[in-house]
Amino acid sequence: MKLYNYFRSGTSFRVRIALNLKGLDYDYVAVHLAKGEQHGPTYRALSPDGLVPLLELEGEPQPLRLSQSMAIIEYLDEVFPEPPLLPRDPLGRARVRALAQTIACEIHPINNLRVLKYLAGPLALSEAQRAEWYNHWVMEGLRIYERRLQQLAEERARQDLPPSVYSYGDTPTLADCCLVPQIVNGRRFGLEYDGIPLTLAVYERCMQLEAFQRAHPSRCPDAE
Amino acid sequence: MKLYNYFRSGTSFRVRIALNLKGLDYDYVAVHLAKGEQHGPTYRALSPDGLVPLLELEGEPQPLRLSQSMAIIEYLDEVFPEPPLLPRDPLGRARVRALAQTIACEIHPINNLRVLKYLAGPLALSEAQRAEWYNHWVMEGLRIYERRLQQLAEERARQDLPPSVYSYGDTPTLADCCLVPQIVNGRRFGLEYDGIPLTLAVYERCMQLEAFQRAHPSRCPDAE
Repeated sequence: MKLYNYFRSGTSFRVRIALNLKGLDYDYVAVHLAKGEQHGPTYRALSPDGLVPLLELEGEPQPLRLSQSMAIIEYLDEVFPEPPLLPRDPLGRARVRALAQTIACEIHPINNLRVLKYLAGPLALSEAQRAEWYNHWVMEGLRIYERRLQQLAEERARQDLPPSVYSYGDTPTLADCCLVPQIVNGRRFGLEYDGIPLTLAVYERCMQLEAFQRAHPSRCPDAE
Repeated sequence: MKLYNYFRSGTSFRVRIALNLKGLDYDYVAVHLAKGEQHGPTYRALSPDGLVPLLELEGEPQPLRLSQSMAIIEYLDEVFPEPPLLPRDPLGRARVRALAQTIACEIHPINNLRVLKYLAGPLALSEAQRAEWYNHWVMEGLRIYERRLQQLAEERARQDLPPSVYSYGDTPTLADCCLVPQIVNGRRFGLEYDGIPLTLAVYERCMQLEAFQRAHPSRCPDAE
């Protein structure tokens, strides 16, 4: 199995965590986004979208190549079911997917490298305006995440269940795979994350696990 | 079942299509996004995120409320499996999810109402700059969608399968639920969609189905 990815890409980080949680070995293939390698002919021949991550699995007559981090993680969870990254019950699955999509659809797309480049290039926004943009959308999304965790905690309390250890329940899920890279990315931009204590506590508990630590950008072969 | 939604919201439109494809009746509850009703106390008491759509199902001791359109559609597909909106095999599911996420993670979040409002308000961009922004990200995402359809068509040809009728295979899927609202939304902004013939052909075939027609913004009770 090969993972085409980039140390600083949050969506790549999600898949690295999932592969580690599943105990799956993979070859790390670096695609240097900041240098534009994703637009070069070598990578474009593999990937129709020029985006990372791309997971390549052996297959006949040719390898299988999977795109989109959440789709990749759900595929891994279906094909390698242990340990599960989604609950067994439909409601639990809907809760975990909604948490994951709060990161993947409400925060990350608005703040990724290509959007920040467009703000700096065609729109000629100042560094301060770009920082304000980044901060605004990250915190708006994380406050939604926090309210979801709050609501889930209240649901568990009504059922006399102990508080969740991770975003949903006692084991890491797809939601944690999405949350942790977003928190790490924001730290790099100097965010202080006031007012989201439940979210930060989940992050801290995830980062105590070797699967999350080993997937961290600073531990990647292409880290700068 | 109640769907809190807004006629012009693309994510609401996705869920309306899915409910129609499943043959599920629902009460349409309008939340007027342009007037900011999603931030009012009535809606906030139901929804922690102030986003639409929100699907409410009967439950004890209180109703179940589900957020995030793709998570809602996957829940519906698990609880009401016929007709399926995702293929049965993990690879097919990964392909459909990657198509859906190409719309839901690469296009829609960058162009939704709250982002366009931020461009007009805090960033004081001109109407022309906002139109250029919208056009840029929609077409960048749809060209990725087109290349994915092309690649899938080649895969089917290698297996001697006939071309897909919809985005993936002979029945509408989660991918079509995401694609059609994006095409409709862009038409409202005057996009002409040059260079994406496979994508437009899928759109046209979907729009021949009553489930898609009936979900269209112009057919909604709150249409203006």
